[in-house]
Formats: sequence, C-alpha cells, structure tokens
Amino acid sequence: MSESMQGLHRTHRCTEVSNANIGEKVTVMGWVQKRRNLGSLIFIDLRDRSGILQLVFDEPKVGSEGFAKAGTLRSEFVIAVEGTVQKRSAAVNENLKTGDIEVIAESIRILSESQTPPFQIEENSQTKDEIRLKYRYLDLRRPDIQRNLMLRSKVAYLMRDFMAKEGFLEIETPILCKSTPEGARDYLVPSRIHPGSFYALPQSPQLFKQLLMASGYDRYFQIAKCFRDEDLRADRQPEFTQADMELSFVDIDDVLDVNERLLKYIFKEAIGVDVELPLKRMPWQEAMDRFGSDKPDTRFGMELKDVSDIVKDCGFGVFTSALEQGGSVRGINAEGQGAMPRKKIDKLVEFAKGYGAKGLAYLSVQEDGSYKSSFAKFMTEEELKNLVAAMDGKPGDLLLFAADKNKIVWNVLGALRLEIAKELDLLDPNQYNFLWITEFPLLEWSDEENRYMAMHHPFTMPMEEDWDKIDTDPGAVRAKAYDIVLNGTELGGGSVRIHQSDIQEKMFEVLGFTKERAHEQFGFLLDAFSYGVPPHAGLAYGLDRLVMHMVHADSIRDVIAFPKVKDASDLMSNAPDIVDEKQLEELCIKVDEKEVEEKEAEEAAEK
Amino acid sequence: MSESMQGLHRTHRCTEVSNANIGEKVTVMGWVQKRRNLGSLIFIDLRDRSGILQLVFDEPKVGSEGFAKAGTLRSEFVIAVEGTVQKRSAAVNENLKTGDIEVIAESIRILSESQTPPFQIEENSQTKDEIRLKYRYLDLRRPDIQRNLMLRSKVAYLMRDFMAKEGFLEIETPILCKSTPEGARDYLVPSRIHPGSFYALPQSPQLFKQLLMASGYDRYFQIAKCFRDEDLRADRQPEFTQADMELSFVDIDDVLDVNERLLKYIFKEAIGVDVELPLKRMPWQEAMDRFGSDKPDTRFGMELKDVSDIVKDCGFGVFTSALEQGGSVRGINAEGQGAMPRKKIDKLVEFAKGYGAKGLAYLSVQEDGSYKSSFAKFMTEEELKNLVAAMDGKPGDLLLFAADKNKIVWNVLGALRLEIAKELDLLDPNQYNFLWITEFPLLEWSDEENRYMAMHHPFTMPMEEDWDKIDTDPGAVRAKAYDIVLNGTELGGGSVRIHQSDIQEKMFEVLGFTKERAHEQFGFLLDAFSYGVPPHAGLAYGLDRLVMHMVHADSIRDVIAFPKVKDASDLMSNAPDIVDEKQLEELCIKVDEKEVEEKEAEEAAEK
Repeated sequence: MSESMQGLHRTHRCTEVSNANIGEKVTVMGWVQKRRNLGSLIFIDLRDRSGILQLVFDEPKVGSEGFAKAGTLRSEFVIAVEGTVQKRSAAVNENLKTGDIEVIAESIRILSESQTPPFQIEENSQTKDEIRLKYRYLDLRRPDIQRNLMLRSKVAYLMRDFMAKEGFLEIETPILCKSTPEGARDYLVPSRIHPGSFYALPQSPQLFKQLLMASGYDRYFQIAKCFRDEDLRADRQPEFTQADMELSFVDIDDVLDVNERLLKYIFKEAIGVDVELPLKRMPWQEAMDRFGSDKPDTRFGMELKDVSDIVKDCGFGVFTSALEQGGSVRGINAEGQGAMPRKKIDKLVEFAKGYGAKGLAYLSVQEDGSYKSSFAKFMTEEELKNLVAAMDGKPGDLLLFAADKNKIVWNVLGALRLEIAKELDLLDPNQYNFLWITEFPLLEWSDEENRYMAMHHPFTMPMEEDWDKIDTDPGAVRAKAYDIVLNGTELGGGSVRIHQSDIQEKMFEVLGFTKERAHEQFGFLLDAFSYGVPPHAGLAYGLDRLVMHMVHADSIRDVIAFPKVKDASDLMSNAPDIVDEKQLEELCIKVDEKEVEEKEAEEAAEK
Repeated sequence: MSESMQGLHRTHRCTEVSNANIGEKVTVMGWVQKRRNLGSLIFIDLRDRSGILQLVFDEPKVGSEGFAKAGTLRSEFVIAVEGTVQKRSAAVNENLKTGDIEVIAESIRILSESQTPPFQIEENSQTKDEIRLKYRYLDLRRPDIQRNLMLRSKVAYLMRDFMAKEGFLEIETPILCKSTPEGARDYLVPSRIHPGSFYALPQSPQLFKQLLMASGYDRYFQIAKCFRDEDLRADRQPEFTQADMELSFVDIDDVLDVNERLLKYIFKEAIGVDVELPLKRMPWQEAMDRFGSDKPDTRFGMELKDVSDIVKDCGFGVFTSALEQGGSVRGINAEGQGAMPRKKIDKLVEFAKGYGAKGLAYLSVQEDGSYKSSFAKFMTEEELKNLVAAMDGKPGDLLLFAADKNKIVWNVLGALRLEIAKELDLLDPNQYNFLWITEFPLLEWSDEENRYMAMHHPFTMPMEEDWDKIDTDPGAVRAKAYDIVLNGTELGGGSVRIHQSDIQEKMFEVLGFTKERAHEQFGFLLDAFSYGVPPHAGLAYGLDRLVMHMVHADSIRDVIAFPKVKDASDLMSNAPDIVDEKQLEELCIKVDEKEVEEKEAEEAAEK
C-alpha cells in the first residue's frame, strides 16, 4: 500500500521541530528508523536528512485506523504524520537534537512501504564495502555519508561564493576534447559522425583555462570533472573533481594570497576551523631535507638530519659507498623508542624496503648510555658519539638511518617518519597545518626517457634568478610552482605560466621537443599565445580529497555520491557493461576479440 | 620582445578607473585595441574584459625609450602602463564608460607582442563562423561574447545562490555511466580494464537524481553536463548544460513555486527584468487549441480558431474529408494582411507544406467586403459569411486555414503564426512572457511502435482524477508534467514522479514493458524504490538556451566558450581526431574499416 500525499504539506524537517514548537501542529515526513511498542503506545523514530524526531502513536489520539497503520510500520517505510509537538514524556535523549520533544500523532499516511533492507541504516556501518556499494542508494541514507555530502555541497558553494566576489568567472570547458599523447592515459569516445576519430575526456581543463587567459577573461574558476584512465589506488577515482582557477596579470604572491583567503573562508564557514594567515611557506629543497617529502606533515617533529659529513670516513661500507655514489646518509630520531623490540624494528626495515631502501641502519641509545645497533661494530666510539650527538640522541631514543641516492633516502625516511608517527598516535586530527611548498625544481631527470622532463608541465615559469643556469645546470633551475599541503596531503597545486615566447621556446628545447612536436601537441595554445598573452598563473584543488580531509573520511568514496571501485566499475548500476552490437556498428568500431583474449591470458598469467 | 611584469601590480581594470581617480597614479594592463599618432602624441585604446581606457603617450612624460616603445605598439599587444589619471583633454567620448578621462603614461612594458590577427576584435563581427571558431581564442576576445560569458557565469552563480538558500544540495552525479537502450543515442566510452565493455556519457542525471531522493537527500540541484549523440540542429550541441533539480515530499505547486521565485530572482539580478508572479499557467490542450504549440509565444495574438463545426457540411472536399478522417479545420486571422500579394501567399503555402500540410486554404477579405479565396467557389455565400464571422474577419484581413489530423493542423498553424509574426515584426524582444504549460498527456500513441509511449518518461505521475481512464481511454489521461516557456521557447520542464509501486507497475503494463524488460532497463531504480521512496518531483532547465535568451544571442554558440559545430567537431582543437593505434589496442577495439567505407559510400550516395 502506498498513499498519495495530495493535500498534505510538510511544515518542518525532523530536527527543524524544536521545543519552540511545543503545542503547535506540525506535519513531518520521513523514513521509519525504528518502531517500539511500549505498553499501549507505539514509538517511531522518524528520520530525514536533518536527523531524528520521535513520534508517539496513542490510539485515542490517532484513531484506531491510524493506530493500526502505525502497528504495521517497519524500518525504511516512508510516512507522513500530522500531530502536535509536546515536551517529551519520558527521559530526555541527550544524543538527539530533538531529544526533549516528541510529536503526538493525529493522523498518518504510509507514502511508501519498504522491503527489509540488506543492512541497517546507521552510522559507521560495518557492512562490507561491496554490499554498501551495490546498494549505494541505501548506503547513501546513512547519516555520516549524508553529512559528508552536505558538507561537500557547502564547500563547493562557499568556494563559488568567495571566487565570485573576487571577480572570478565560472566558465565551463568542454568534456568532449582532443586526445593529447603526453600525460596520463585518456578515456576515449568514438565519434559516430567522423568514423575512425575519437574524442578524449579531459585530464584537466589546463589548456582551456590558459586559452581563456589569452582571450582576456582575466579570472577563471570552475569546479570541473576530470578523467584519467589509470589503475586505481585507494584515493583515486577514474573521474574526479577539480576546483580549478587561473588569473591574469599576476605573479606568485597574488595567487597565494587569494588562495589563502579562500582556504581561511571555507575552513571557517564549513567546519569552524580558524586558519591563521599568512600560511607558512617552505622551499621544496627544505621540505625534502627536513621531512623527506614535498608534502610534509608538520604536526610533529622527527625531522630528517643529514649526517653524511659525520660518517663520510667511517668504516661502515653501506654509508660510505652510498656517499661515494653521490648519495647521502640521513637519519631520524624516534624519540623514546629506544626499547623497541627487535621484531618491531625488523618490521620497520621491511617497511623501508617497500620504499626502495636496501636496508635500514638503526641505533638505540640505551638508558645506561650504551648503544644497541646494527652497525656499531663498523664504527669507532668517537664516530658513534658524534653521530648520536648530531641526531640529538638521548638515552631511550631510537635512531634510524638510510644511505642511498638522495631521492631514495628522502622517500624512505619521509615514509618511515609518518609510519612511526601513526603508530605512536602523534597525528592530531584537529590540528590543521597548512603549508605552501614553493620553488620546486623546474625539471626532473628521467632515466627512462634519458632527458629532462617538466616537473609540473612545459608551461611552468622558471624563477628569473635561476634562468641563466638553464644551459649549464638545468636541474638547478627552480620553478614558480607551488603546492598547498595540509597535514601531509597535497590539496592542490599550480604555477605561474610562461607567457614569453623566447622562454617557452627554450623550455621546449631543453625538454627535447622539436618545433614540430611542440606544435603537434600544443598547437592551438601556442597559436593563441602568438596573438598577445597576459602573464598568468593558476592553481587547482582536488575537491574530493579536500572534502575527505575536512570530514576525516577514511575513503574518498565516502565523499562521492556514486563512486567507482578499484576496477573502475560502478557496482550499483553495473557500469561499464556490454552494449548493443548496433551501437558499435553505428560508431564503426569492433571489439578486438583476439586482443581481449590476449589481455585476459596475460592477466591470468599474472595471478 | 616580451617583458616580465615582476615588480608591477595592477591597480585597476580599465573601466574601474573613473573621474574619481583624477590626479591618482594607476597601473593598468590589457590589450591594445587601437593606436593613433596625433601630432606629437600617441593615443592607445587599452582593452580588458571590463572595457576600454584611453592612454596618452607624451615623450616628455614617458621618456624617449617609453615613447619609442609606444610607437611600436600594434593591435593585440599586451602592455602594462603606469600613469596618472586626468580629465580628457579632447572631446569626451560618450560611448565609453571612461570617456571623460585618460591616463598619461609614465612608463610602459610590453608584456607580449602579437601577430596581426586574422580578424579585427570588435563587437558584432561579420567574420565567417568557420574563421571565428577556428580562432576561437580570438573570437572570445570580442566584447559581446565576453559579456555573454560573464552573464552566463552570473546566472549560474545566482541560481546556485538561490538554490542553496532554499535548502538544495549540489550533488555531483557521474559522467561515466551505464548505457540505456531507450532515449537518444549515447556517447560510449570503451573500458580498458573491462575490455569489450563500455561506459556511456549521461543524457541527463534523471536516474541519479531520483535515486538521491530515494536516499533521503530531500532537495538536489546540479548544473550538469549532458550528452546526446544526435545529428545537430542550430540550437543543439553534443554536450550541453542542464540546471537540474529534484525535490522530495512535494506536489506540483511546490515545484512551480520555487521555480517561479528562482526565475524572478535571476531575471531581476542578471538582466534587470521584473517578472510578475505568479506566472500564468495553461493546460496543454488549451495551448494547442489556441496557439498550435506546447510552447506558445504569447507576446501577440493571431490565435487559432477551430471552425470544424462551421465547415462540416460545406462543399469543400479538403475540409470535409479531413473532418471525416477524425481531423479538424482550423484557421488564423492575419489581421490587416488582406492585400498580401499572391506570390507571398504562395510562399506561406510552401512554408506550411514544410510542416506537413497538404496545402493551405486562404481567404482575404477585401476592403469592399468581397472575398478573394482559394476555396470560395466550393462554398455558399452563407457558409463563407459564417466562416469569416467565426474568424472575426474584417475588411483587410487574411484568413489562413489548415485541414488535417489535429497534430498536423496545430503544427502548421502554430508555425505559420510565428512566421507571420516575425515578418510583421510583432515580437518585442524586451517583453518577457513566461508561461507554465501543464496537464500534458501522459501517453502519446506511436504508429511506428504500435503502442503508447510515455510523453515525458515512464516515471511521470498521472493526474489522480484521470487515473480511472488508464484502461478505457489511456490517451485521455493527463500527467503531472510541466514545461516553463518564455516567448515561445521551452526553457525547461519536469514532472511529479510516480512513487507508488502499483501505479508504476500499471504504467509499465500500459507501455507494453514486461517485468523483465522494465527491470533490465531501470533495475537499480526500481530496486531502490522498493526500500521506501518519498513522493518527489523535479525540473531541468537547458542552461545554454536560457542564457541565450537572456542575452538575445542569435546562436547557442555565442553563450558557450568552446562550442562544437554542426558535425560535432571543434574547429579550434580539431577534436575528434584519429588517435594512436596503441591507444585502441589497450582498449581492445578496432576501427571497422569496412563499416567506415560503407558509411562513407552511403553518405556520398545521399549527396
């Protein structure tokens, strides 16, 4: 049975009813969270997106038909109830916003019945992910997910509000674009009208937003869908949302300034967190040296120390050979962890190997001042003493060292530092450490390609003061690029772009692009730039990730209404799926069964 | 030569400088619109998105180097100029916001040079569309296009602002979806991880927004990209933007109310037009009878009149046979057009044929009261007199009649009415006639499919008072569907949805869906509805079209930053395009060359 609501008008959402309404008639509608029969009364917890309200059915008040209806109610039935608000007769429920009131039902309609759901609608459900995502429409009823999506909506609104007031225009860029060979893998869309040709879904609106600057739009903003056909990690989705901006006639400080005020605004308005401005800035080199990471979590210390100078002449071959090969020896001090059992240290060694280390050298300073160490035997007392002193090692401390190429040493110790902090519970979720990382290297050497690659992209502006090194020492040229980091997560990043054709040409040369290749890949952008382009700069946030951190969600899927799982499929709608042969015919494409078989065979072999 | 802007800071956009700044130093940046050398002075019109500002270069003030630089400036060079604001020395330019001032340059940097553009950057360019779209980044510099996109940005912002304040949540729905066999043609996206399977780009977020209602989100809003792989008409784009909403626990009046207030708000705030509420409502049947259209332009009269009763016994076979076949005879009175020359009338007849008419009967009432007519000879004086009287025909009027099935008669006269109004210039662009069309038929008979089809979609709620006719006279059942019409254009539409499983089942039965087929197509929505679904309703606007009408653009392309042309290609980026063989291999698809050849042969044959 399902009744119409014709003639009824909802007066309040559940928690919009309060003790200010006592004695008033209200009409509320929602889902049955729970029914309890207590003596001659029936109690219903009614749920909507605002929360829970208690309804009381008393036969003399609601009539025998209404009372009978109330008796049939089960979880997730949708009902409309008219009644009068009164002070709660039983004990006040402190956990509910409406815990001091209840509505005495005078009439009820059952708008929709419900089967028994496959899992209970409740916060912090322990239901398996696959079930939750198959029944996503039920999972989405959970109050915690609802709060996440409501906050996401609010964050997007606050961003737009702020940006509009700062003179940014929201301009939509296309989804059906042209495939660009560089970068991540594109999703392709076959064209029916041009058989054999394909569109690509955009990996970001980068080229379009730079074009808009060349076209004089001055300040652009967009909350834009982006697509990457990559193998998914836990925090990745094949389609994701970017809060994207670009500004003309600015330099780096203008971009950072507007973004700092944006962040302050949304953190205050959305989650009540005060962000102190200006945000700290740290050059990339310092971040790597101190934290082994270009997105350091600065909520705790345990900083890296470079002890290369101290160990350079010692007898421990692991250290000295790393130095001879141009690497470094660095360590962290896990204070107070000197008594860590060998088994646990071994686990850390394994963890370090997962990040590319060949091993991990350790030294624990015993309470009596003696050392327990994997390498002490290779070093003199004096050397050990100097090393411990350099690390600020005190009795009870555990010192951990990595020796390798800089990149590996940073990676290993950066990860280890975080891992230990997690184990020791040093990460306060209510502390918000924002940090700009600046002065990134412009170029990154690729052994694979045997050339320099752009660390951000080929349009990133070098720092004026380094530009004279572009021929002699290209790796030392820093870029006007910046990332915004919160508690060890990169929320977004961007750069000042090159607007001068001579610098751009030189960049392409350094990157090993011929003029032809540059034109093939970026033709229309270079063309546009030849007709007068303003200095411009931009930044993009990963919106999913930003919201995920604001609500402290465990998974990015908890802030996306209809997410995909690791194999990029949607378990609810069963997308992707096979389609009608006729659809493929119209597109003039065929599934290459031979290729499919080969691929499947390969995958089977991998398992 | 292109200089850096390091150390400079823009103080104003061009038209932010005003006579309030006289005597002040300013730094402005923008594009050179025009250079004039006048005596010993150089005048530059500087352009940015805000408008034009006049700069004056006087060698003693700007120095010889600066003056020399100014002498090299050409159209579209990007410059930064510091100078002092003064009252304009020459005559005030009334056409410019800054027409009473000028900036006396004290220094200049050339930030970027420009090639000679292929066309002048100016309003109402007469440049061919293909050139404009190939150089879209230049076309986008035109002040009229910039105003359009700025207004579009504002409209989107106002909508979001209004909706947020009304308790709507903006929730993003996926772009990578599942293909649904019904409806328009889907764009497909091959899956790499699931070779042989495809995603589809959404034609609208319809299913997702209904799911969100089932999930308790209560009020949903989204400005969403939608995709249809159809052959394009002038006002269609393969990807278009929908302002989409859905509301729970509402009936039709709630939806109309919130949308009326939304429209009033955006028309007032964006273009200063006062919309009087409540908007007029007209049942579909009345719209067809009076205007021959379900999106009538009510800015002028010339309404249709049904004269079937008057001509039913006359001697004109065209009229009587149409009536015998269940059709009707209807006419319009083109007042004052009685003297229209025969040649022009013949053109109208041809026009009518384009809309499916077999012909068009006409009668002009001469100034002396006599008739000139294509059919007078078949009718008695009395019959003619009655007919003219029924049409309110006065001397000097032209009466035009169509006789056919109702659908054709409406189509023909509806189109003819508009055509004549255009010719007679009866359409006032500054009048905004909003109108709700309501009570659409629930079903539409399809000769092709030999069954009833849903006029909106299978989830549209029938009107309670008609539901008992669903078996005996299904064509007479009206729906709780509504369109919002402005000056003859459908801006948007929607419906109350069915939330009762018994009504939904009956609908599928009437539509000839087996349970299996219904489940196959709408499985997860029906599943979701079996767990408790609230009454809900929604509406969607075509945002491109809405903005197009607000700015009186001739083409939908003038309100989209990077539009596609009729063959769904982007002339600037050259999308779609061929891709690397490797990309197709990874997706396990092949272009079916045989199919391509056949298709090309077919197309060649058509030409």
